[in-house]
Amino acid sequence: MLSYEPPVDEYMFLFKELVDLDKHRHLRGFADLDIDVVEAVLTEAGKLAREVMLPLNAVADREGCTRHPDGSVTTPTGFGDAYRAYAEGGWAGLAAPEQYGGQDFPKTFATAVMEFRSASNQSFDMYTGWGDSIAEILMAHGTPEQCETYLTRLITGEWGATMGLTEPHCGTDVGLLRTRATPQPDGSYKITGTKIFNSGGEHDLTDNIIHFVLARIDGDAPGSKGISLFLMPKNLPSENGEFDQRNAVSCGSIEHKMGLNGSATCVMNYDEAKAWLVGEPRHGLMGMFKLMNAIRRRTGTMAVGVSELATQNAVAYTKERLQGRSLSGPKQPEAMADPLIVQPDVRRTLMKLKSFNEGARALLVWSGLIADVVDRAPDKAEAAAAEERLALITPVIKAYLSDEGFDNAVSAQQMFGGHGYVAETGIEQLVRDCRMLAIAEGANGVQGVDLVLRKLGQNKGQAAFDLIDEIGTQIQTNRKLTPSLSLVDAMARAIDDMREATTHLVELGGRDREAACTGATDYIHLTGLVLIGYMWLRLANAATRQIDEGKDESGEMAAKLMRARFFAERMLPETSLRLTRIKASADNVMALEEQCF
Amino acid sequence: MLSYEPPVDEYMFLFKELVDLDKHRHLRGFADLDIDVVEAVLTEAGKLAREVMLPLNAVADREGCTRHPDGSVTTPTGFGDAYRAYAEGGWAGLAAPEQYGGQDFPKTFATAVMEFRSASNQSFDMYTGWGDSIAEILMAHGTPEQCETYLTRLITGEWGATMGLTEPHCGTDVGLLRTRATPQPDGSYKITGTKIFNSGGEHDLTDNIIHFVLARIDGDAPGSKGISLFLMPKNLPSENGEFDQRNAVSCGSIEHKMGLNGSATCVMNYDEAKAWLVGEPRHGLMGMFKLMNAIRRRTGTMAVGVSELATQNAVAYTKERLQGRSLSGPKQPEAMADPLIVQPDVRRTLMKLKSFNEGARALLVWSGLIADVVDRAPDKAEAAAAEERLALITPVIKAYLSDEGFDNAVSAQQMFGGHGYVAETGIEQLVRDCRMLAIAEGANGVQGVDLVLRKLGQNKGQAAFDLIDEIGTQIQTNRKLTPSLSLVDAMARAIDDMREATTHLVELGGRDREAACTGATDYIHLTGLVLIGYMWLRLANAATRQIDEGKDESGEMAAKLMRARFFAERMLPETSLRLTRIKASADNVMALEEQCF
Repeated sequence: MLSYEPPVDEYMFLFKELVDLDKHRHLRGFADLDIDVVEAVLTEAGKLAREVMLPLNAVADREGCTRHPDGSVTTPTGFGDAYRAYAEGGWAGLAAPEQYGGQDFPKTFATAVMEFRSASNQSFDMYTGWGDSIAEILMAHGTPEQCETYLTRLITGEWGATMGLTEPHCGTDVGLLRTRATPQPDGSYKITGTKIFNSGGEHDLTDNIIHFVLARIDGDAPGSKGISLFLMPKNLPSENGEFDQRNAVSCGSIEHKMGLNGSATCVMNYDEAKAWLVGEPRHGLMGMFKLMNAIRRRTGTMAVGVSELATQNAVAYTKERLQGRSLSGPKQPEAMADPLIVQPDVRRTLMKLKSFNEGARALLVWSGLIADVVDRAPDKAEAAAAEERLALITPVIKAYLSDEGFDNAVSAQQMFGGHGYVAETGIEQLVRDCRMLAIAEGANGVQGVDLVLRKLGQNKGQAAFDLIDEIGTQIQTNRKLTPSLSLVDAMARAIDDMREATTHLVELGGRDREAACTGATDYIHLTGLVLIGYMWLRLANAATRQIDEGKDESGEMAAKLMRARFFAERMLPETSLRLTRIKASADNVMALEEQCF
Repeated sequence: MLSYEPPVDEYMFLFKELVDLDKHRHLRGFADLDIDVVEAVLTEAGKLAREVMLPLNAVADREGCTRHPDGSVTTPTGFGDAYRAYAEGGWAGLAAPEQYGGQDFPKTFATAVMEFRSASNQSFDMYTGWGDSIAEILMAHGTPEQCETYLTRLITGEWGATMGLTEPHCGTDVGLLRTRATPQPDGSYKITGTKIFNSGGEHDLTDNIIHFVLARIDGDAPGSKGISLFLMPKNLPSENGEFDQRNAVSCGSIEHKMGLNGSATCVMNYDEAKAWLVGEPRHGLMGMFKLMNAIRRRTGTMAVGVSELATQNAVAYTKERLQGRSLSGPKQPEAMADPLIVQPDVRRTLMKLKSFNEGARALLVWSGLIADVVDRAPDKAEAAAAEERLALITPVIKAYLSDEGFDNAVSAQQMFGGHGYVAETGIEQLVRDCRMLAIAEGANGVQGVDLVLRKLGQNKGQAAFDLIDEIGTQIQTNRKLTPSLSLVDAMARAIDDMREATTHLVELGGRDREAACTGATDYIHLTGLVLIGYMWLRLANAATRQIDEGKDESGEMAAKLMRARFFAERMLPETSLRLTRIKASADNVMALEEQCF
């Protein structure tokens, strides 16, 4: 079985060194926030992940979910108990408002809990964490009665929630959807249609499941402007007020997938199922965008979690597995061979994994803080600026982290040699599971279009240039604080690349959207590299200060600086390749006729 | 089900334009070689792949292999019939000597057959194609009696062959093996030990399976110098000459793997199994290296095959799936949406896949020709030079093509969106299946060490510099023939990168082997890019000539030039990133203490 040690200490380092709490005391809920409480929460979350969820991960992969002839779905052994531990421990509403049973824990810190959970069991994690996201939609758009009836139950995890978006013929292009909603005299709607890829559309973890469904009201226009959002409980209230009346929503089948076998991916049939409108008719996508953005940041978090789990196990295996000898002479002459970790290519791989994980984790915390500013800043201008920043980096966090997270899982698997290809070792499951992250919640190619056309398209890319300037300032700061670190020069080059790429794409996107999008994926990766480099600049300052203050007995701060160096010298130079591609002629992508493919 | 059209025409183009048969008429078997016969063979091979093997691919993935309590193993439905079609069609001995029932088909052309087979069904392919490789060992090292008894049966595919190398505690470091061989008075040996990852160690496709086993004769030295090679039939000859007596070799279990479910990966137990020495004692690895090199080229071929299959299906899906609109205005205004292929990021992906497949395929043919020169040149100096070249490029073909082939399968899967994650579509299986190629037959990290230390370590890297010079000459030729093609300048930069990297690594490897190996994987990729660029230079010349001669009615030659341009402008610039990494300080990889990982 895979082992896992949740990186609580590393998160605490980030909270203390990266977040600068005292600068954020003005945010709602930050005034009297006690960092020791945060540590206690993380420690408990880590324990739950390691002791309860992790042991179910491989079991769930083997067992999968079972759909019975009556349409009910059984989740893998242990998921029921784990879910109870999750809900009863108050984890479902960790970041949700206290008013509805949540704990109002800022996203800055809740990110850590999310990472631990997804690292320990990505399948299980697919059933959780919807409560607070969906709660936001309901709070913003629902009626007082809807909030009263559903919010507490969703936020406490008493009931499950699921999103009905994709249909067989439409995924990305949600405007094509065919699910119909027919108004009823009592103000409710009857919904008819079929949804696919409905994660947790049916399961046995909760007594009720609330489906949030996109559908088109009879007579409304085709396309995305005719889409409304509905709330459709699996079990409806009967006259006695109990939710004991089965709605006409049923699971037709569950998908057999590459991975995430423990997560029931359902085909859901609605046969005149009863539902209520959420918010205004034909404005169904408004709440959905905010939800999707939260889910996209969460996807990046999941990728870092899986990358961390894969890395920890690759490190353990390469320290333990004796095979071959060090190229500079035997390191364990008494043993039959040296451990794999003495090999340069193994070390190069592990350094890549670790320098990514650490920088990406900082990025998650930083973006969590930005999300908190959006939600919690008393000053509207501050919140609005944060919202613009968040909109800019969300597609990068989703796509860059999921691409790299998958690549890291593959690299970690490679460290196991043939044993990594065998199911028993457990590492191949991570590759299969996390492959989903680049695909779901808006495929990564779509994230590129979002970034290059929608985000750079606003105010001539001002949000990106603001970010570039901020990072430029950071580079200047580091020139003073860490002058000898190669990261400073590497970041100076990388930020030049980003500025040039941004200028190019803003200009090109204004006159030829197709041409700009031939470089979209490269721009996502360029920006991702720069953001992680930015985080490393700040971490390097903190590490240097601790060393200067004589606080590095363990050598961990010196090791951080070495990982910063690795990232600078072997990862960051990729920005130049990305820029070259971004500036390449679009003809080599767009010119060939379709029949030439 | 996935569809597949074997690229017969493309291979014929390569045979006519790249190989220059008239320059190779002096090679044994090439004198009266008829290109129409080659085309007929490829057409038949393609038919077998598409009609017989492809339909079994998904079935095999679902069914897997079954080991029964008596140790026998059942292969998936249809594999028995397919194997008979394969053996009876004469495919098993296609490239083997006529003397033993083979057809002596040059490797230049046999490569195509190998690609078709592995593309159509990688699991099935794992049972085949050993005959000719192992035949080479037996012909080189076996006794006349061994050749007489086994060769024809192996080469015709009447019997299967399998290699027993890996043990639970040793894979790469084969010198650690513990399997023992005890001499018997009759000249045979009794072999005791356990082998793992034994592909086709047991199955129901043939009446007998000949195990080629590495073991240590009692009293021989530890390490690789004490290893001998043995021939161990599953069924031994009894006194009547029939092979009807069961040997003490048995399958203990079969692995549950990430993919390749149709291929029985066996744990094999030898309990004083009877076997005979092949070649000299303690020289077991001599024949094995040649075999491994053939298998490594084959691994690269399999990677191209899977990449081709994945590409064809991604192309078909993106032409068919209607979703969203073109960024330059509707392309199919009458339909509800445009096909995915109008999207820039989709096209960028498809161009990457196609420009790789085509260049890599040329590389396979070119390397097949080099292998033929080794085997068939009457002039020993010519053969020796080819052998040196082959030794240099083999690790690149194995590692670069398998890394990129996997990456391409993942990219192709991405084109299917959520449907690519579902087993039903079939594309996710390719990702799981081909993941093995970077791991098996010498993990790719080991290929890097082989290239940088062993291959560059000989004659101060002369073989690499010879190749660089040859490519430099080609660039000069192209400056005249295709002066306007961006590939020419791109290759001029790339070959400078390769020269600089080679000079650096030869020098560094001479004084610090560990430091040199921190750049080994990057050097593999740099060389792979340059080799494919080299092939594109030559293909571009052929395409240009055909266009100039008015022979491009279909536009296929113009499309080739566009793919060459894509490779030049978006893929080749990666050599510069690789060079930067190769020249980076080794400290950022080697300096951290083990406990910091």
